[in-house]
Amino acid sequence: MSRFELLAFDADDTLWQNERLYLEAQAKFAGLLARYHSPERIRERLYRAETRNLEHFGYGVKAFALSMIETAVELTEGRISGQDLQTLVDLARGMLHVRVELLEGVLETLDLLKKRFSLMLLTKGDLFEQENKIARSGLAGCFRYIEIVSQKTAPVYQSLLERYSVSPGRFLMVGNSLRSDILPVLEIGGHAVYIPHELTWQHEHADPPPAGQSGYYQLAHVGLLPALLEQMETG
Amino acid sequence: MSRFELLAFDADDTLWQNERLYLEAQAKFAGLLARYHSPERIRERLYRAETRNLEHFGYGVKAFALSMIETAVELTEGRISGQDLQTLVDLARGMLHVRVELLEGVLETLDLLKKRFSLMLLTKGDLFEQENKIARSGLAGCFRYIEIVSQKTAPVYQSLLERYSVSPGRFLMVGNSLRSDILPVLEIGGHAVYIPHELTWQHEHADPPPAGQSGYYQLAHVGLLPALLEQMETG
Repeated sequence: MSRFELLAFDADDTLWQNERLYLEAQAKFAGLLARYHSPERIRERLYRAETRNLEHFGYGVKAFALSMIETAVELTEGRISGQDLQTLVDLARGMLHVRVELLEGVLETLDLLKKRFSLMLLTKGDLFEQENKIARSGLAGCFRYIEIVSQKTAPVYQSLLERYSVSPGRFLMVGNSLRSDILPVLEIGGHAVYIPHELTWQHEHADPPPAGQSGYYQLAHVGLLPALLEQMETG
Repeated sequence: MSRFELLAFDADDTLWQNERLYLEAQAKFAGLLARYHSPERIRERLYRAETRNLEHFGYGVKAFALSMIETAVELTEGRISGQDLQTLVDLARGMLHVRVELLEGVLETLDLLKKRFSLMLLTKGDLFEQENKIARSGLAGCFRYIEIVSQKTAPVYQSLLERYSVSPGRFLMVGNSLRSDILPVLEIGGHAVYIPHELTWQHEHADPPPAGQSGYYQLAHVGLLPALLEQMETG
């Protein structure tokens, strides 16, 4: 019997590129408002709007679009043109239809691991958007379970594991966000593998766990996961 | 043993008022654009944008907000003011924080039924928004299971029931949308209780099932459900 009953993977920037899309959209947004303000100021105000709107609108492209629109109205003192507004809505719509670009090694790794483990895709965000991305990614068949939650906190992990009758000690989470994928899982006594992505949304930053923290691992890329699991199973 | 293993309830306009909020927002929207077009034309164009955007943005207030913004840009030929745009975003934000108004008889009925049946809240829409509404409704404790899906089609019901190991013949769905709550459930061999709401979104309209369709029931209000169930169990 394997040591782990359930292996869960975060999706955005763990399985596929996501933050890159937002950075590209932000650059276009800054370009649109270039004659009003500096790119730094525009980015700073947009981030402020996004953070403020999280509790109202949650995560995802639609929330991001509404934050761009609010920021554009604010920074242009209401002078933003109808055409530019339409450009912003179209920009958001485009983000929802762009090709899902898998990270290197993801397909091979999942193909290998699905033979030995029950895999779960466990992502937070907009339900409609995440379902669409999963469908477009071609990865749905690798996962026995798919769970989309609105936030990833210790109580959310706890109740999810209860629902699946999996004890935290037999659960392993893989992801790129210390704040959402790693710290809450360690808090409830699970195992967590942190795979940093070169781009991670400012809001998801957190301090890594203390050195030697039990259950915590860090890998440079997902392709190293099978070897780590092998070592954990036999070690 | 009860005839039904699982009783599922739709939420919007089955347990609490929802469409009313959209109609109020639409009226404010039409007021905002009153000097450009007639209320009828504004409503018609907004509905067209909402329908067109469903496949891009899905259901919910954020999608509605983006449709209002697009429609406003279109109908004013780009002359909509920054202030009016901010009003639209604020209108959407307000819809997400308004008090959840339960329909008459809901609380008493759920209190009664939860003692005898496994109850599920089964709603489609925006995850973040629906979770917030469930929390604000005070009804979460009545339900053993809560499922939020992005659409309610026959395959979605089918796979949900498989996941819960419930056969369709032992499943009963209660809701106000023929299209989402009733027809797909009958299609897979389940039971469905249609409780029409005076306000139902145009998009959810569908023809009722033929007279005498097996498994189909219609009630005037939710308070009549316990008596119907009683009759089904003994009849």
